[in-house]
Amino acid sequence: MDTKKVLKGAIAALTSVAALGALTAPAFATEGKGVEELSRHGGAQRIAGVYGNTKATNVILFIGDGMGDSEITVARNYLHGVNGTFDGLDKIGQAGSAPETGVGQYTTFSLGNNSGDSLMAKDKNGQLTGNKTAGVITPVTDSSASGSGWATGTKTYNNAVDVDVKGNPQLNLIELAKAAGKATGNVTTAEIQDATPAVLESHSTERACYGPQGKWDGSDKNGDGKVDLEDAKLAGIGSCLADQLKANGGIGSISEQLLDTRADVTIGGGSKYFNQLDQNGKTLWDDAAARGFQTVKSGDIDGFKALSEANQDKPVLALLGDGNLPTQYNPSVASKYSADKDANPTVCSPNDNWLGKRGASLADFTTKAIDLLSANPNGAKNGYFLQVEGASIDKQDHNANACGQIGETDDLDKAISAALAKVDLNNTLVIVTADHAHTSQIVEAQPYYALSTVLKNRDGSKTVISYGTSDAPVYQDANGDPIDGDEYKQGDNGDANTAEKFAGAQGNMSHTGTQLRIAASGPGASRVDGLTDQTDNFYTIANALGLATDTDAQNRLSDGAKVEVKKADDGKYYAEANGFNGDAVLSYTLTDKASGKTVAESNSATPVSGVRVATTQTTTIDLPADFTPAEGANYTLTVTGRQSGKAVNVDFAGAKGTSDKTPGKPGKGDQTVAQGEVKKPAAPLGQTGSAVLGVALLVLALGAGALCVKFARR
Amino acid sequence: MDTKKVLKGAIAALTSVAALGALTAPAFATEGKGVEELSRHGGAQRIAGVYGNTKATNVILFIGDGMGDSEITVARNYLHGVNGTFDGLDKIGQAGSAPETGVGQYTTFSLGNNSGDSLMAKDKNGQLTGNKTAGVITPVTDSSASGSGWATGTKTYNNAVDVDVKGNPQLNLIELAKAAGKATGNVTTAEIQDATPAVLESHSTERACYGPQGKWDGSDKNGDGKVDLEDAKLAGIGSCLADQLKANGGIGSISEQLLDTRADVTIGGGSKYFNQLDQNGKTLWDDAAARGFQTVKSGDIDGFKALSEANQDKPVLALLGDGNLPTQYNPSVASKYSADKDANPTVCSPNDNWLGKRGASLADFTTKAIDLLSANPNGAKNGYFLQVEGASIDKQDHNANACGQIGETDDLDKAISAALAKVDLNNTLVIVTADHAHTSQIVEAQPYYALSTVLKNRDGSKTVISYGTSDAPVYQDANGDPIDGDEYKQGDNGDANTAEKFAGAQGNMSHTGTQLRIAASGPGASRVDGLTDQTDNFYTIANALGLATDTDAQNRLSDGAKVEVKKADDGKYYAEANGFNGDAVLSYTLTDKASGKTVAESNSATPVSGVRVATTQTTTIDLPADFTPAEGANYTLTVTGRQSGKAVNVDFAGAKGTSDKTPGKPGKGDQTVAQGEVKKPAAPLGQTGSAVLGVALLVLALGAGALCVKFARR
Repeated sequence: MDTKKVLKGAIAALTSVAALGALTAPAFATEGKGVEELSRHGGAQRIAGVYGNTKATNVILFIGDGMGDSEITVARNYLHGVNGTFDGLDKIGQAGSAPETGVGQYTTFSLGNNSGDSLMAKDKNGQLTGNKTAGVITPVTDSSASGSGWATGTKTYNNAVDVDVKGNPQLNLIELAKAAGKATGNVTTAEIQDATPAVLESHSTERACYGPQGKWDGSDKNGDGKVDLEDAKLAGIGSCLADQLKANGGIGSISEQLLDTRADVTIGGGSKYFNQLDQNGKTLWDDAAARGFQTVKSGDIDGFKALSEANQDKPVLALLGDGNLPTQYNPSVASKYSADKDANPTVCSPNDNWLGKRGASLADFTTKAIDLLSANPNGAKNGYFLQVEGASIDKQDHNANACGQIGETDDLDKAISAALAKVDLNNTLVIVTADHAHTSQIVEAQPYYALSTVLKNRDGSKTVISYGTSDAPVYQDANGDPIDGDEYKQGDNGDANTAEKFAGAQGNMSHTGTQLRIAASGPGASRVDGLTDQTDNFYTIANALGLATDTDAQNRLSDGAKVEVKKADDGKYYAEANGFNGDAVLSYTLTDKASGKTVAESNSATPVSGVRVATTQTTTIDLPADFTPAEGANYTLTVTGRQSGKAVNVDFAGAKGTSDKTPGKPGKGDQTVAQGEVKKPAAPLGQTGSAVLGVALLVLALGAGALCVKFARR
Repeated sequence: MDTKKVLKGAIAALTSVAALGALTAPAFATEGKGVEELSRHGGAQRIAGVYGNTKATNVILFIGDGMGDSEITVARNYLHGVNGTFDGLDKIGQAGSAPETGVGQYTTFSLGNNSGDSLMAKDKNGQLTGNKTAGVITPVTDSSASGSGWATGTKTYNNAVDVDVKGNPQLNLIELAKAAGKATGNVTTAEIQDATPAVLESHSTERACYGPQGKWDGSDKNGDGKVDLEDAKLAGIGSCLADQLKANGGIGSISEQLLDTRADVTIGGGSKYFNQLDQNGKTLWDDAAARGFQTVKSGDIDGFKALSEANQDKPVLALLGDGNLPTQYNPSVASKYSADKDANPTVCSPNDNWLGKRGASLADFTTKAIDLLSANPNGAKNGYFLQVEGASIDKQDHNANACGQIGETDDLDKAISAALAKVDLNNTLVIVTADHAHTSQIVEAQPYYALSTVLKNRDGSKTVISYGTSDAPVYQDANGDPIDGDEYKQGDNGDANTAEKFAGAQGNMSHTGTQLRIAASGPGASRVDGLTDQTDNFYTIANALGLATDTDAQNRLSDGAKVEVKKADDGKYYAEANGFNGDAVLSYTLTDKASGKTVAESNSATPVSGVRVATTQTTTIDLPADFTPAEGANYTLTVTGRQSGKAVNVDFAGAKGTSDKTPGKPGKGDQTVAQGEVKKPAAPLGQTGSAVLGVALLVLALGAGALCVKFARR
């Protein structure tokens, strides 16, 4: 192409795409970037700087977990026939069906190695050794790394929830949407602590850190007839990083951070993990209720249906199943070759336990969430961000359960249709994609070695699905050993040790690393066109909603941070921080001004140690229980946003404690002792924003006394 | 969505997509169509009637055979790193990189069953029993059904080459482009008779009917030191349907029809099949040369490079390898689990036999084709249609040969880049897609049962590729039996019958039936957006080029058909047909007017019996050698286009034969005896086009004498 042609093409391109927003051609190198560059916030974008110029009031992101093109086709074939069409899923991105549409593929790789070493492992000198950039690019992502990609714009390691390869928390879409005054929602058929919903709730080095006791279900461990901290101690901390737990001065487990993130609407499964106990021996359900959440527990369908409002004073936490929610169909069992499978193809049978039978399908969740968010004051004024996940496409694909994955795909399709019946695509951007592709392949005939299922499609044809990616034997004998090969290939050879007896042990099929379909309708939809990366999706959504995307802009969200030192009516000192909207974690240091000695400080051993920000709410910082200011002594409390670097210093003096103690009414008589705020520099001292910010970090705010009781402790 | 919203959305949609052409929302049923409807021309379209309003002067269609999203990602990971980018492949469809772009998915299913019964099998009464609509939808296509889909717009059965489920020839893009005065080209790395190129050359009930002797390579079968019809007899007719062969009054094999279709440029492999013999004992190479083709045979790279023009008088037929062309990399061998594969990942080694080393890569073919077609008089005036296939992505995926498929993907990418360097995307539509997806999956770890290969990527990371879809044992012993299971799972157990010894027998991996990526840049590109069917691609291309798409419009291409009865200088009678541009096959009947008896007629036992139309050229119809008109007798020759139904009747009288016989110069003295043409009705007699056509078929044209020798016999 000669220069004239390029110029002509470029001009034409600019003209032609004007209706779709100011898109410009991405300039990416043929050879990929290095791991260090990829690991930075936004570093893995393929179309950095390419934005549509349209804004969406609302964004709904539909995630079919594990829903690659093959899984979509499997379900379409079965449910609607090979030539059939999904009413919702296939409509998103379809040209002409919305003012703006887009379809493309995105890459989903993650970073780091898969060695399984803890990110926070330390050497003999106490230095962290788990830097995941020490590894390489990982072509196949898990759900947590992929979810972190679109939720934060940062490429990270498998197992990471909204932390980068060094464990540093990265702000997610719900935190940023809340900072922009939007309503927010998070809906799934999985346990709400599972990776895909978790990336909108929390920052965790380990995705399995569901609660302070890991994946304990809150049952009576020691059999003494009650559940208390002794049971919690027996349960241990599961896979949680010790320094992340609140008991150890960390930001807390995924469930606890969910309460801090405080989305307006949260609906899913995983109820039992809220039976875990916090460091005070209260259940997380108790904590949720104490903090104003409307709680709906496992099985309470009526409670779900009765929900009529959701806002920051009364957010909804509805977890309708103990674990992952039941699938629409009973499981099918993949098996080795058999002529019978062709002669009698599988027809999926309805699962009586599916909540959809009682009016609580994913479509019902979606309708409820949209209604609640639209009526929410922030939603009505500023719009909303909502994520809806069909989770068990992945989970049942892992199990080689074709009917399970198909039913979940149907649920997701119907949820999309439900959304389309509610929203206006002139102001709402709807995106449908997946976090990674999966195992199931539609093949010509039953494969010889791999497991397979033959399904009878809606149109009478048969889909043969191969499941062949397990890295462990898919048939085991009673001892868990692989069955002998003759049996595997030829069927039961007459001994007691047959494949037939252990057909349930289907191993664990693998995610795949292929590029994935992403489709969108509504303002900003065209940004998904062509080849992008999963992390580009963060920018697509955040830009459409007008959220802070780059690190500087995110840091500036903490420019208005303020801290008040308060004295409780029980005489205890604590601090309340507000406006650290560019941060997920705060650290603090309390210094005796005369001696310069540190009287108390937060744990900062890891990036997830410290105080979790209650997003856009008041964050309470409990000073040590034994801290009582000496009369006449002067102190400085320095609170620093660990993401923004913004610091607030509050000077205060010790004084005779006189408080209006009113037993049973905690907080009523709390007094503000002193307050401070982030001080802005008088004039820019440097050329770049970062230089200005660097200076801002050094400026100390002066404390000033005032009486102001706004919030009770949370 | 309420009515007002729908209206508002629809108006906004129309406004917004104005820049992309007059797209309207497709109205498809959720449930798919039935097999009968799907089997009709255009019946499987998902977006029928949705057209962009822009026309392209040229269209280049790039087909990566078997190149699903997984195959694209495998190759990108290896060649450019997981975050890397294909310079050509990834650019097509990328928003902002062309005035108009589009990306979507399409379905690729085929029709009929896979029973293997011949479509033309007959019952005891001689009735055809092979109607493929008697079967059902086939979720996994082969390359011939899929190619027929985009080449003709008609969904058909696996094994079909441009014939529908009843064996009726369907006009293809090259035939239609020629009818519209365009230049045409067909380029591949496969044997030129292979399904993907074949769908632009021929109509065949069996894809394996490469030549009149099937897949014979033209070697000396009886060892008598020469190759003649005796060898041809020994070679038999392979998989060809007997009634399709020219010797039996049929339209001929794929290679022979290639000569009738007469694209301006044909480049690929499969040279050896042109060593087969026609019914006169001449090689097909001889036939090609006699018909004016510039022939370049296997290995003649200099001949390829020297090609400087290509047009209808001197079309190019360059077949640079005997079979499929060598791949860029030597094969890798997939194998069962081994720790060594992770420790020492595969790096592909260059294949010394790759033609790219000598300046004849697929990119070189593409550059040459574009240069020739642009300089071609028709191309310069009316534009061109060119298909370029990277064939061995599929072939090596079948073989579980990762390096093979990767090298071919690289070749295709570079061919696209070569095209982008030549064309103007303001007037040229470039489409990149595949015919079906394939086996290779990128997984987390080596699978337990499936074969796999671990590749070292450009960025240092490792891609683990699983091949697990073979329906036959992938390891065999010396007898072709599957090896015993213990060996398969545990390695060589010490006997002589080990997997290691037969690692080359890798079985045949399966195509997959997942929806596929299609991407486009240039005028009309947006029509590939969203979900379409493979047959929609025919309409996308044909509409952009302004070709006849619907059956009526195609039939009208034969409105100007004329037939001349001629007497050769050797006294033989024959006819020349022109203007049957809406037909692929002609039938004829020669009647004695006085007695009403049929003197001679073409074979019409099957839809592929009869006379193959020499597309937009003069078609010669040889009357029986023993036909000599009786003096004073009157005859009617009726020639009917079997697709259009248009008939031409030529009346002529027997007369004393006087011809200027000039031995050695056949055709010089040929005389036109009589001529006729399709007669149009004076006025429309019916409401619909089809009624009018029905009437037209009944109208007999009157013959008239004239001397007119335009073309020598071909």
